[in-house]
Amino acid sequence: MKGKFISLEGGEGSGKTTAIAFIEQWLETQNIPYLLTREPGGTPLAEEIRQLVLSPREEKVSDTAELLMMFAARAQHLAEKIQPALNNGIWVISDRFLDSSYVYQGHARGGDISMLDQLSRWVVGDNLPDATLLLDVPVEIGQQRVKARQYQDRLDKETLAFHQKVRDGFLKRADLEPDRVKVIDASATLPSVKTQIESHLVQLSHTWSGKQ
Amino acid sequence: MKGKFISLEGGEGSGKTTAIAFIEQWLETQNIPYLLTREPGGTPLAEEIRQLVLSPREEKVSDTAELLMMFAARAQHLAEKIQPALNNGIWVISDRFLDSSYVYQGHARGGDISMLDQLSRWVVGDNLPDATLLLDVPVEIGQQRVKARQYQDRLDKETLAFHQKVRDGFLKRADLEPDRVKVIDASATLPSVKTQIESHLVQLSHTWSGKQ
Ligand SMILES: Nc1ncnc2c1ncn2[C@@H]1O[C@H](COP(=O)(O)OP(=O)(O)OP(=O)(O)O)[C@@H](O)[C@H]1O
Ligand SMILES: Nc1ncnc2c1ncn2[C@@H]1O[C@H](COP(=O)(O)OP(=O)(O)OP(=O)(O)O)[C@@H](O)[C@H]1O
Ligand SMILES: [Mg+2]
Ligand SMILES: [Mg+2]
Repeated sequence: MKGKFISLEGGEGSGKTTAIAFIEQWLETQNIPYLLTREPGGTPLAEEIRQLVLSPREEKVSDTAELLMMFAARAQHLAEKIQPALNNGIWVISDRFLDSSYVYQGHARGGDISMLDQLSRWVVGDNLPDATLLLDVPVEIGQQRVKARQYQDRLDKETLAFHQKVRDGFLKRADLEPDRVKVIDASATLPSVKTQIESHLVQLSHTWSGKQ
Repeated sequence: MKGKFISLEGGEGSGKTTAIAFIEQWLETQNIPYLLTREPGGTPLAEEIRQLVLSPREEKVSDTAELLMMFAARAQHLAEKIQPALNNGIWVISDRFLDSSYVYQGHARGGDISMLDQLSRWVVGDNLPDATLLLDVPVEIGQQRVKARQYQDRLDKETLAFHQKVRDGFLKRADLEPDRVKVIDASATLPSVKTQIESHLVQLSHTWSGKQ
């Protein structure tokens, strides 16, 4: 039976990487075969594209070029890593996926949503995650967590407004696709976040009869 | 006044690079400011994308990923190099452009033409070349020229069939857009090819009143 595909979404410092550690523990105790991956990236070529997109450069990167590179990396990630694993009965856990493109390139930076929809139809099609866990946290809390992790200058109003757009964008994704996108209250304590996530994992495993 | 945008198209060994040398000479004698460029590539980021696409790798590259990378490079090339030059009254001569994507990814390798049309609308829009010079040559002659340039194994039938599809694909582009795509008989002698190209350059310069 095909593996389950789970993506983790949320703003900076919302707790995606922390959540993935919980999920990994849970899958280990359940003896479920799994693969951890991330976007942008996930295959050698897709990681090279990630480098091109994220590394600072003098040349201004056109919004369209960036969006097409993100979806090129995603096409490669799906074809060469995610789909083969799922077809082998392996669960795939991805740190960010499609929703991040909608939120960062679309909502937060004003990209063309109809272009995102078209790219999504071409590149992702029916291969949406079985569940997307959206770690939702007020912008101030997320930013405090990031600051605690490493020294950062005080954020100016523009940055806070940007992170607010990111949070709103993710919540809008959950409104549009409530069956897929599950909102996790990530401002709660770690044990509470863990409990919320576990309940979704248990539900997913009920429709899964094992690797064969 | 905006510069003129000319692309050179045609299969391997059809004479694109040779034609660009003629064009450069002609522009010099006319004192017309110009910029030579190529695709995929043309800016530092676009050249890095070219490297990713063209360098051999163990990982199979998905067709969709390749197509999106090509158009990402093109978006960057247009935004950061071609359009600024044209807006400054500089003529731009590109060794390959949009038609090569249609022919190689579309006609020759069976890619989705409606996807090419949509990407073309997004990325190129109204910024099509003022003239595309299609160097048309029978496959056997093009291949002989390439062989003369460097040692190559005898081409098998599959390769010939592929090059035939490329030639047919380019001629189809000329049929679809006869006002833009000018077919040059590139099996002719070099002086004849030069004369054919010059007549198109003269026509373009008649609608151009100089850089200011
Ligand atoms: N529920 C929580 N309560 C308190 N601290 C938390 C909680 N969740 C995560 N943290 C802490 O907040 C910081 C950011 O968490 P994490 O790295 O998991 O976020 P992230 O979403 O992966 O961030 P990034 O987008 O930067 O990768 C870490 O130091 C983590 O230990
Ligand atoms: N009309 C012609 N008659 C005879 N030889 C020619 C003619 N045009 C080009 N050649 C020769 O054919 C070879 C290939 O030409 P050229 O490099 O210009 O082709 P190209 O289209 O740029 O090829 P590629 O796609 O490999 O870049 C060169 O050695 C060139 O001198
Ligand atoms: Mg993280
Ligand atoms: Mg050449």
